Amino acid sequence: MITEIAMLTIDPARAADFETAVAIAAPLFRAAHGCHGIALERVIERPGQYRLVVRWESVEAHMRDFRNSAAFGEWRALAGPFFVGTPDVTHSESVAAYF
Amino acid sequence: MITEIAMLTIDPARAADFETAVAIAAPLFRAAHGCHGIALERVIERPGQYRLVVRWESVEAHMRDFRNSAAFGEWRALAGPFFVGTPDVTHSESVAAYF
Repeated sequence: MITEIAMLTIDPARAADFETAVAIAAPLFRAAHGCHGIALERVIERPGQYRLVVRWESVEAHMRDFRNSAAFGEWRALAGPFFVGTPDVTHSESVAAYF
Repeated sequence: MITEIAMLTIDPARAADFETAVAIAAPLFRAAHGCHGIALERVIERPGQYRLVVRWESVEAHMRDFRNSAAFGEWRALAGPFFVGTPDVTHSESVAAYF
């Protein structure tokens, strides 16, 4: 299991509509093969910056399977119009959770 | 409850020693007032980049209480020598976890 972190920047004036768009898009991830969870976090110090946290079975489940699916197009159609700049997407693996 | 995300960059050649240093430091966080968890994640695409994820009762529990404690000095004495550049520290709050 790995975690995708997408740093998303939007116009802070459109925050409520963006958050609604992500909620509407969430079922696309739920239906995606190899997707185990999605959460949206708001960065307190940087208005308009969000962290989309998606749990995937593997990097390939995200980058190969999801990115080449119709669902990815639907996700970007919903959320993409809010983006200011290109999302910064990385994947991480757990080293340890200490407590 | 909020989440501190510290983006840490180290020399990839020293990764094993850095990970050990964080494990040694973990009890400092466990003992800190208002700290509810700490985890270390390795960014797959960027060797030497880590995400330290710390759950705090509030931003103040981290920035006022922990940062002014002796434990913060001990943490930085253990992990700081590995840092390349200044850690990028932000706090985030949950908008939603969809599944």
